Amino acid sequence: MGKNGQGAEHHGSEFTAKDYTDPPPWSFYRALIAEFIATLLFLYVTVATVIGHKASTDPNKVSTEVVSCGGVGILGIAWAFGGMIFILVYCTAGISGGHINPAVTFGLFLARKVSLVRAVLYMGAQSLGAICGVALVKSFQKAYFNRYGGGANSLAEGYSRGTGLAAEIIGTFVLVYTVFSATDPKRNARDSHVPVLAPLPIGFAVFMVHLATIPITGTGINPPGASAPPSSSTRKDLERSGAAIAAGYHQYILRAGAVKALGSFRSGSHV
Amino acid sequence: MGKNGQGAEHHGSEFTAKDYTDPPPWSFYRALIAEFIATLLFLYVTVATVIGHKASTDPNKVSTEVVSCGGVGILGIAWAFGGMIFILVYCTAGISGGHINPAVTFGLFLARKVSLVRAVLYMGAQSLGAICGVALVKSFQKAYFNRYGGGANSLAEGYSRGTGLAAEIIGTFVLVYTVFSATDPKRNARDSHVPVLAPLPIGFAVFMVHLATIPITGTGINPPGASAPPSSSTRKDLERSGAAIAAGYHQYILRAGAVKALGSFRSGSHV
Amino acid sequence: MGKNGQGAEHHGSEFTAKDYTDPPPWSFYRALIAEFIATLLFLYVTVATVIGHKASTDPNKVSTEVVSCGGVGILGIAWAFGGMIFILVYCTAGISGGHINPAVTFGLFLARKVSLVRAVLYMGAQSLGAICGVALVKSFQKAYFNRYGGGANSLAEGYSRGTGLAAEIIGTFVLVYTVFSATDPKRNARDSHVPVLAPLPIGFAVFMVHLATIPITGTGINPPGASAPPSSSTRKDLERSGAAIAAGYHQYILRAGAVKALGSFRSGSHV
Amino acid sequence: MGKNGQGAEHHGSEFTAKDYTDPPPWSFYRALIAEFIATLLFLYVTVATVIGHKASTDPNKVSTEVVSCGGVGILGIAWAFGGMIFILVYCTAGISGGHINPAVTFGLFLARKVSLVRAVLYMGAQSLGAICGVALVKSFQKAYFNRYGGGANSLAEGYSRGTGLAAEIIGTFVLVYTVFSATDPKRNARDSHVPVLAPLPIGFAVFMVHLATIPITGTGINPPGASAPPSSSTRKDLERSGAAIAAGYHQYILRAGAVKALGSFRSGSHV
Repeated sequence: MGKNGQGAEHHGSEFTAKDYTDPPPWSFYRALIAEFIATLLFLYVTVATVIGHKASTDPNKVSTEVVSCGGVGILGIAWAFGGMIFILVYCTAGISGGHINPAVTFGLFLARKVSLVRAVLYMGAQSLGAICGVALVKSFQKAYFNRYGGGANSLAEGYSRGTGLAAEIIGTFVLVYTVFSATDPKRNARDSHVPVLAPLPIGFAVFMVHLATIPITGTGINPPGASAPPSSSTRKDLERSGAAIAAGYHQYILRAGAVKALGSFRSGSHV
Repeated sequence: MGKNGQGAEHHGSEFTAKDYTDPPPWSFYRALIAEFIATLLFLYVTVATVIGHKASTDPNKVSTEVVSCGGVGILGIAWAFGGMIFILVYCTAGISGGHINPAVTFGLFLARKVSLVRAVLYMGAQSLGAICGVALVKSFQKAYFNRYGGGANSLAEGYSRGTGLAAEIIGTFVLVYTVFSATDPKRNARDSHVPVLAPLPIGFAVFMVHLATIPITGTGINPPGASAPPSSSTRKDLERSGAAIAAGYHQYILRAGAVKALGSFRSGSHV
Repeated sequence: MGKNGQGAEHHGSEFTAKDYTDPPPWSFYRALIAEFIATLLFLYVTVATVIGHKASTDPNKVSTEVVSCGGVGILGIAWAFGGMIFILVYCTAGISGGHINPAVTFGLFLARKVSLVRAVLYMGAQSLGAICGVALVKSFQKAYFNRYGGGANSLAEGYSRGTGLAAEIIGTFVLVYTVFSATDPKRNARDSHVPVLAPLPIGFAVFMVHLATIPITGTGINPPGASAPPSSSTRKDLERSGAAIAAGYHQYILRAGAVKALGSFRSGSHV
Repeated sequence: MGKNGQGAEHHGSEFTAKDYTDPPPWSFYRALIAEFIATLLFLYVTVATVIGHKASTDPNKVSTEVVSCGGVGILGIAWAFGGMIFILVYCTAGISGGHINPAVTFGLFLARKVSLVRAVLYMGAQSLGAICGVALVKSFQKAYFNRYGGGANSLAEGYSRGTGLAAEIIGTFVLVYTVFSATDPKRNARDSHVPVLAPLPIGFAVFMVHLATIPITGTGINPPGASAPPSSSTRKDLERSGAAIAAGYHQYILRAGAVKALGSFRSGSHV
């Protein structure tokens, strides 16, 4: 998210957003490993936080007086999601570009910031990392994991299915829109201060979205997190819709890409 | 808020605060769209957070043991307001100047940082975005929206009307004062580190003000948020008072503008 | 706190920490006004947050089910103190140096960063601002202010007087030590990134100290806040002790000032 | 953590990661004092926060209605750990490198960033500081300290011993991995913005790890904190395992150190 890894490594200081060549093997494998480890750590910490919260607020287990504030609270869970994204984007921005989330990879692919090969392999590494991260929590906290549903997302009662779907799309839109704003090469050139803060607003975007959507759908703007427990492929489509809308909004409205797209067939021909 | 958009685009690196020309159409429309979308997202996320909090702490619905910490808490709501402003100012600072809030636009207009045309159209876009954002929450969460009052602001019992009005004025003063400090071109020139942090203290100002005023008036330093549900035009006047005081304090006291205003009729004549 | 105002204004880019001349009247009065307004806003927001929290958790007033998490919590109060310091240091750093707290002014005076005249007048402006800020809350929320003790600090039961005193000294030490680290001119020269973050760690230091000491003494590392309601002059002595220890630690241990102090009588003679 | 102190002081702007000479006595003693004081303050503030939280949520002492949100909450405790690390790394980065935690010192030693002598003496200073910090809390709050176990870490019921051990390893891995990413000299050269944020993600890493592991093991990625009350030497081994894995991951995978290690015997010969 923070910064597009391969661009920084192979093109040096000049930014050629749509124009990329496949990177040499080792740095590419390294990027896949970084995405895998980052997604694993993300899922491990967040699912462990959710389960720990549920365990310490379980009315069947804890005495009544202490139960109400025994856990980290929904605010703490939202911080866990947002804060982990902040740390991991910060750590992996220079290695893999710090996507971590398939929706971000998909959005950057649509905007032609990453190649198809890289996008597909990133998504694979992310899904594998998510599965391993959840498995790690499961292996260590088997009893709790099964009792509390493994942090699986489910619609809260009283919300229609449509509400959940819309919340997913808008949540992904906020995240991907922030990523585009933070990594916009034009903006980098003009406002040299922007990259300084890049991982922080991206982390905050995740924090905000979880504050708003945890009570509705039980989080879940991160598809690998959602897909590790048995989940719907519908969600993936939703995330992709949100990412596509954000990519389109940023590229064609804010960046005036539409005007350029019409005027310059030449620049698009070598993609 | 973060940075005055049109100045950065049309005057390049030289800052001529009071001296502006109307921008070319496309970048101007783009700024309006950015303000519209940002205000829409702001209202959607914050109202959804408030309603989600109310739904999960509703004593009639949830079992007693879990109710007390079921929601994100007032602290979480204050974070939602402050964090969204941080993200959105960061994202739109380079496009529209990142006002988002009519009170900010009004204060910058008084300080002659934006033209009258831009100020009026920005406020229109913000109001429209606020209405659409609230409508979005309403359409998806109709039952909850109506049951919990749609996040509408109302005075808490035990506070007089005067208390609420004063809290609004001081809250707006803190926000607009922070915006002026963060975007002061003189300061930018002297302390090159200031723009780096600009969106962060602005977001924190909103966070702080909500911490202090939620228990009194139920938030509301953001007029479009307050005006979307049927609200008083009195509030708008209050916000404008706070913004005007902050603009005056910054321009005439801190920036020693008074001395200049007396000494240089010339520089003011071309406005 | 963030940056020493008069140094930046009158010596330009060269840092001559101990060597100052009294500033011209207007910029000096402006600094006093900025300190006054900043301390007023600090006291207004924090005391309003404390009273709002107490009002919404008052078991006599609110129904039992909702009481437990009705307010912003002690965590929210700690955020109010830390966050306001962050904003106000950020806003006033270029005008007055952003002291806000007499203990900080006293520590900087001991380290010969501000003159005696400036230190005394700053403390006066801060005390006046604190009194006005509290009076503002009092006038608007008279009933609550009197019922809940106006946010006055008092030792929690079960803690001895000595415990409270020690907590005050250590708390002030942490704050003043952070201020010295953040504004150290030697460090500024070496690590150009340090001033960028200066207001943030100072705000966090206040946040941390309040997290640790609210349950003991009911906050109070800010003497004007403590002195506005009738309080002990003992506290002021404590704050000064903590500030003096931090100034000594930074100047004579970390900055190796002791070695220099012995070797260079010359540089100290013109103070 | 933030930055390797002796490198910055003795090698100037050129980074020679593995190649160091022992520093001159005074700056070295100063670094030990800084580590001692920083660890003392860290333990004092965090243990005081934990005890204050336990005291204000003790169902035997406080009335039932207020108990649930009387303390700062587990979220507040996690903030105390993360926030203190942020402040202290920021303050001591230029003096001692800001390790504070033996696991960090051990990881940096494994990566040949600090010499054996420095590593051993740092760990000694840290352990001494931890003992003094805890003793300080104990002396002032004797009754509470003994009643609530002095903030000693203990496994929550329902978790196996293996779960706690794994949580320790992964938690230390996240912290040390973040430290390596933040202080990587190669990255510093390429992305000039990275050192700006260094203390912030390190503090957030501690915050995140505590959110996830407080409900399991009662915190404890900081060995001196854990060792001050009588604790197991097993924990120290765990921390070291986590630090070693993180050091290896960063040096041999991400930094492609393996390729270099094979290819360049020369560069390793002078260590």
